[in-house]
Amino acid sequence: MKLYTFFRSSASYRVRIALNLKGLEYEQVPVHLRRGGGEQHGTAYKKINPQELVPALEINGRTLIQSLAIIEYLDERYPDPPLLPSDPADRALARSMALMIACEIHPLQNLRVLNHLKASHHQSDEDVNRWARHWIDLGLASLERLVSAGPTCEFCVGDRATLADICLVPQLANARRFGSDLSDFPTLVRIEERCNALPAFERARPENQPDAE
Amino acid sequence: MKLYTFFRSSASYRVRIALNLKGLEYEQVPVHLRRGGGEQHGTAYKKINPQELVPALEINGRTLIQSLAIIEYLDERYPDPPLLPSDPADRALARSMALMIACEIHPLQNLRVLNHLKASHHQSDEDVNRWARHWIDLGLASLERLVSAGPTCEFCVGDRATLADICLVPQLANARRFGSDLSDFPTLVRIEERCNALPAFERARPENQPDAE
Repeated sequence: MKLYTFFRSSASYRVRIALNLKGLEYEQVPVHLRRGGGEQHGTAYKKINPQELVPALEINGRTLIQSLAIIEYLDERYPDPPLLPSDPADRALARSMALMIACEIHPLQNLRVLNHLKASHHQSDEDVNRWARHWIDLGLASLERLVSAGPTCEFCVGDRATLADICLVPQLANARRFGSDLSDFPTLVRIEERCNALPAFERARPENQPDAE
Repeated sequence: MKLYTFFRSSASYRVRIALNLKGLEYEQVPVHLRRGGGEQHGTAYKKINPQELVPALEINGRTLIQSLAIIEYLDERYPDPPLLPSDPADRALARSMALMIACEIHPLQNLRVLNHLKASHHQSDEDVNRWARHWIDLGLASLERLVSAGPTCEFCVGDRATLADICLVPQLANARRFGSDLSDFPTLVRIEERCNALPAFERARPENQPDAE
């Protein structure tokens, strides 16, 4: 099992957490997103992932892309421990929280979008930081409302880490990098602490990866 | 079953297709995204969806949000006909294509993002159209490469409509609205034609909705 990854990529971070929670061994192949204009745009990597993004996972003779699709695959092929609740409506709730991050926050603040704002839309470093914080703060505020509206649990949905928590922890790390004030999101921060106390989350942190700088 | 929807919202369009493919009856509750500053921001709707986005689906006593989470729920609760292939790696492939649209294209070109670019980042109508087309063209080019790299099929993955096709058709409609040149994506356009020949897709089209303008 081979994971094409970048230590600081949130989507790679999600898949690392999932693999660790499942107790699966994997080899890391670093793809540096900044070096030489981005190794993800090289001919070699384009054959692995035509979308030129990380992560990609080589597994059982296939190459899978898109972090949430990879994690759903892992959950179907290696069901123990489950990364989604068993009740269908609770599964939908966990997936919707994950998608609130993966669709509505992360794509707006990732590196290629910020670079494009600077290069093609005359935005300064300060402008793009303000842009990123806007979408992070708006998205996390919705998520805080949704999570805190449910019963008090150890994790986003229930008392076991799910896809929602797997997306939450890397997004809060990004929020800190952009200078968001996380005191508005006490429920999310409490859940993050609970997650980071687990070895699967701890080992997946950017600073604990072989390609960390 | 009650679907909070807006005729022109791509995410609502996806759920309408899925409900139609499953043969499920549903009541439409229109939420107008432009009228009065956006009905999705009103107090009443905020209680239904704290993220203030459409769609939301009231079903079996719960309210579900995020189109892909809703569709996965429908596929689990009403498995016939399936909206994902049966092979786990093919399921991952269909999901990854759906996510390439739902994470990497649609969130960058939706109404609230374009409005924010204009209101807070001094971008003109022409600037935001150029921005939207950039992400649409880049994303569809990756998707065209991925879909055409596989075996020739009637749909994105295999010979039955899946989650990938459900996301593709609304995204191509958006691409046309922004003036993208779709002749670069012949495989995607061929699949779109095949989809739109199905009554489930036809009935879900924005112009065929009760709230269409």
